[in-house]
Amino acid sequence: MTDNGKGPRLDRRGFIGGAALGSAALIGMSGQALAQTGGAAHPSGPRPSGSPQVDFPDDPRAFGGGPASARNRTEMDQRDCEVEGDWPTDLDGAFYRVGPDPQYPKPEAYIGDIPFDGEGHVSMFRIQNGHVDYRTRYARNARFVAQAEARRSLFGMYRNPFTDDPSVAGLNRGTANTQLFLHHGKLLVFKEDSPPVVMDPLTLDTLDPEYTFGGKLESQTHTAHPKIDPATGGLIGFGYEATGFLSKDINVYEADRDGNIVWSVTVAAPYAGMMHDFCVTQDYIVLYLVNMVADENRIRAGGVHFSYDSRTPCYMGVMRRGGDGRDLKWLVGPNLFCTHVMGGWNEGTKITVDMDGGEGNQFPFFPSLHEPYDPVKGTGYIRRFTVDMASRSNDRFQAETIFPEVQGVLSRQDDRFHTLPYRWGFLQVTGPNGGWAVLDHRLGTSKVLSVPGYQLSEMTFVPRRHDAEEGDGYLIGLGSSMAEAGRSDLILFDLADTDGGPRARVKMPYRCVGQVHGFWADARDIPGASAA
Amino acid sequence: MTDNGKGPRLDRRGFIGGAALGSAALIGMSGQALAQTGGAAHPSGPRPSGSPQVDFPDDPRAFGGGPASARNRTEMDQRDCEVEGDWPTDLDGAFYRVGPDPQYPKPEAYIGDIPFDGEGHVSMFRIQNGHVDYRTRYARNARFVAQAEARRSLFGMYRNPFTDDPSVAGLNRGTANTQLFLHHGKLLVFKEDSPPVVMDPLTLDTLDPEYTFGGKLESQTHTAHPKIDPATGGLIGFGYEATGFLSKDINVYEADRDGNIVWSVTVAAPYAGMMHDFCVTQDYIVLYLVNMVADENRIRAGGVHFSYDSRTPCYMGVMRRGGDGRDLKWLVGPNLFCTHVMGGWNEGTKITVDMDGGEGNQFPFFPSLHEPYDPVKGTGYIRRFTVDMASRSNDRFQAETIFPEVQGVLSRQDDRFHTLPYRWGFLQVTGPNGGWAVLDHRLGTSKVLSVPGYQLSEMTFVPRRHDAEEGDGYLIGLGSSMAEAGRSDLILFDLADTDGGPRARVKMPYRCVGQVHGFWADARDIPGASAA
Repeated sequence: MTDNGKGPRLDRRGFIGGAALGSAALIGMSGQALAQTGGAAHPSGPRPSGSPQVDFPDDPRAFGGGPASARNRTEMDQRDCEVEGDWPTDLDGAFYRVGPDPQYPKPEAYIGDIPFDGEGHVSMFRIQNGHVDYRTRYARNARFVAQAEARRSLFGMYRNPFTDDPSVAGLNRGTANTQLFLHHGKLLVFKEDSPPVVMDPLTLDTLDPEYTFGGKLESQTHTAHPKIDPATGGLIGFGYEATGFLSKDINVYEADRDGNIVWSVTVAAPYAGMMHDFCVTQDYIVLYLVNMVADENRIRAGGVHFSYDSRTPCYMGVMRRGGDGRDLKWLVGPNLFCTHVMGGWNEGTKITVDMDGGEGNQFPFFPSLHEPYDPVKGTGYIRRFTVDMASRSNDRFQAETIFPEVQGVLSRQDDRFHTLPYRWGFLQVTGPNGGWAVLDHRLGTSKVLSVPGYQLSEMTFVPRRHDAEEGDGYLIGLGSSMAEAGRSDLILFDLADTDGGPRARVKMPYRCVGQVHGFWADARDIPGASAA
Repeated sequence: MTDNGKGPRLDRRGFIGGAALGSAALIGMSGQALAQTGGAAHPSGPRPSGSPQVDFPDDPRAFGGGPASARNRTEMDQRDCEVEGDWPTDLDGAFYRVGPDPQYPKPEAYIGDIPFDGEGHVSMFRIQNGHVDYRTRYARNARFVAQAEARRSLFGMYRNPFTDDPSVAGLNRGTANTQLFLHHGKLLVFKEDSPPVVMDPLTLDTLDPEYTFGGKLESQTHTAHPKIDPATGGLIGFGYEATGFLSKDINVYEADRDGNIVWSVTVAAPYAGMMHDFCVTQDYIVLYLVNMVADENRIRAGGVHFSYDSRTPCYMGVMRRGGDGRDLKWLVGPNLFCTHVMGGWNEGTKITVDMDGGEGNQFPFFPSLHEPYDPVKGTGYIRRFTVDMASRSNDRFQAETIFPEVQGVLSRQDDRFHTLPYRWGFLQVTGPNGGWAVLDHRLGTSKVLSVPGYQLSEMTFVPRRHDAEEGDGYLIGLGSSMAEAGRSDLILFDLADTDGGPRARVKMPYRCVGQVHGFWADARDIPGASAA
């Protein structure tokens, strides 16, 4: 980008972009591609003023920056994708994914915004009879529609309404870019600062830009990581900053299998900070507050929503399901920066929660208040938290690192075992020999599934059949071919036979839109998806 | 692809595809990537029988073959593409493109089919107020719909109905994959073996899978290269094999600016062979029959429609416009294999036609009857044909090679100068230093516009304004970045100032669907495209 009297002239030196920024690098939070730009940095030169052009920065540290292939921004339909290998023809369902994909470049003042402020772009691989159809659509919520009409960015920094264009004051700022669930026939697309967006699970048309469970959702926000209770089919979710921007209130609710909210309680957190995931057991709700604090002064100064404050403790909050919330206890332990729950359960009053986390900040793109980002301290391990709520001295929880040979992020399990004791866990292993770790909690063994030459996104477990036993099925997820400028394959490992590599793959002609998380839905649960 | 008892197992050696087959290689007919496979060759191993999977061959010589990125098959919508450089904000219109993009792999028997039998995938860059929106849709004609419903290929070899699945006997075999024109408010998409498909010029929805100008088109076929008479706005087209498969009949028609056919005449060719383009002057129709012959015996044996027969003469056919066709004269000259018309005009009875062509076969993927493909003889030059129809001895036309310093294919002009004397011609220059040649017929000079590191597809001239003088405007077309696995840019050269390279470009995140030809339509001519 240049700036001269007659407008920007093509810089031929920049005509060939550099190496592509992989979505895996984004999600894997490598800390190299994504510098600490939150709040103030303007890593690219000035944007030409008055130009109507959509022109993203070349600098990969800037919001939406990097070579053209770092973005996607394209709604796609591919019928009958190319399939290679022994694809299981009895698999019938949909693999959904969502991630941030910047709708517009930010104005210069907000070019240091973080990647997770991109608008939510949903993709679906519809799988049936050995055929695979691919579709992507943006979540057309209030923010997306307003910007589409204006043909420019109107929302400023990540979760900072003080930086918005006056024309969108008061509008829902949600990006719907983090995770999605199929529940009571609806595809719910989540961003933790706002209620879910409902999309049609087959057309991906946006049906409700701000879903409140029929007006019954008491929270103004909703986690990206609700849980499904396999015993009831109910959905348990929560929202933090539930009663307003920067509030300490947390709302926790349970909806039955038909989406009727049957329990809702609002409690208070020790401070306003990030609560990305939570754990639900058969009897308990386990909240986890990390020391990524939300401070109004720093936000009003134009920064992003969170800052990492290593001097503030992390808290685990435990309360009974179905109660009035007054039993909530906030416990402390080793100050671990944990993000995702692999699984958890309780036996009587004894609670076990497995999360991935590091000793320090795992999100280098958020400002760090007291020390520079430390990639070693940020390295994620599986942390097993235990607490006995019957103990009179339960102001602390215990933590141990399990599977210390495995380092990674984005832990998952067989989603049918939310709330229950579980055997199989999965983790995205970071680093050059990355892949998908398969953890056997019963035997204490682990292995890593990788594909030479490929970077893998988060894995999702797919049951072989809807009633298969725990862990009997597949791991599915996107792989990015490093030798082909990041071209994507949908990779399918059969967990019953992983030695020969992937059982099959869907070969995409291009790099697919990136994701944060993915979700598998069985066709039995998708309205209108009856077998052909 | 492997074949064993339990079905195809992923071949990990093949997991990373080889170098991508560029669309430019396809269109540029390099003869290296595309071997002579027409008719019988089975370059890939056997396909697994009974598998419902869509799996294209790895061999780039096979139909639809090569790495995954060699195909596209994806209907896309990108609003507000990224624009870099000094994009002219007063440009208002649409750049349309079309090319073959195989809907399904062929069954094993037809794996040697030629690339030009892929189904027509139309793309549009809608350009207005400095914003660029990208959209692609397949032409949903009878063939596409039948195959989409069956989820497999039903049509066999290129223009060979004897190789079709019985379920589609008698169905229009057209692929709508060669060129498109906007005329009387309709986007007409052409394949020379069938009537045009009509698509909505903004939504790209298919409106008429077999357009016959209100039932008035007498030909069963329609060229991909009609011409517009700038004096009247009328459309002049023709069809060969007009009265039936392999017939020698040629129908020539003229429709007025509203699409009413006002002249139609059917004449006979010396033999059934390829007539890809033609020339229209103010007073004459000039047909050109090349010795790519259609022989029923070879077709019935399962081959493609054409074979190159160097021992058969090429013919130029000349007749008056608006007559009864009895004045048609077939002339011979040097036996040049010419494909596209750059321009042509007449002064009284003296006719000049400029075509690009070689001394021998330019289409190496068609079988050659008497000698192997010779890339030197296939090299294209601009051939200027002249004939005086007043001469009593006009059984021959004269030919000279002009601009011998320029070698290429896909000649074009400022389309507003069809039928008229013209100054500016354009040619896609083949070879490693390829680009877009700009030919000044008045001064006899030429220059080649290229973009280092990029392979360019066919160029299309865009007038600076609808009433700009001839050649005052831009060359537009797709470029494929070799360092980025073929990622596409829409390249815009300003013909008033080409020294600094492209004036601007649209940076696409991926390799766009390939094209044969492109067409520029001014917004004034597009229904519903009024300025925002």
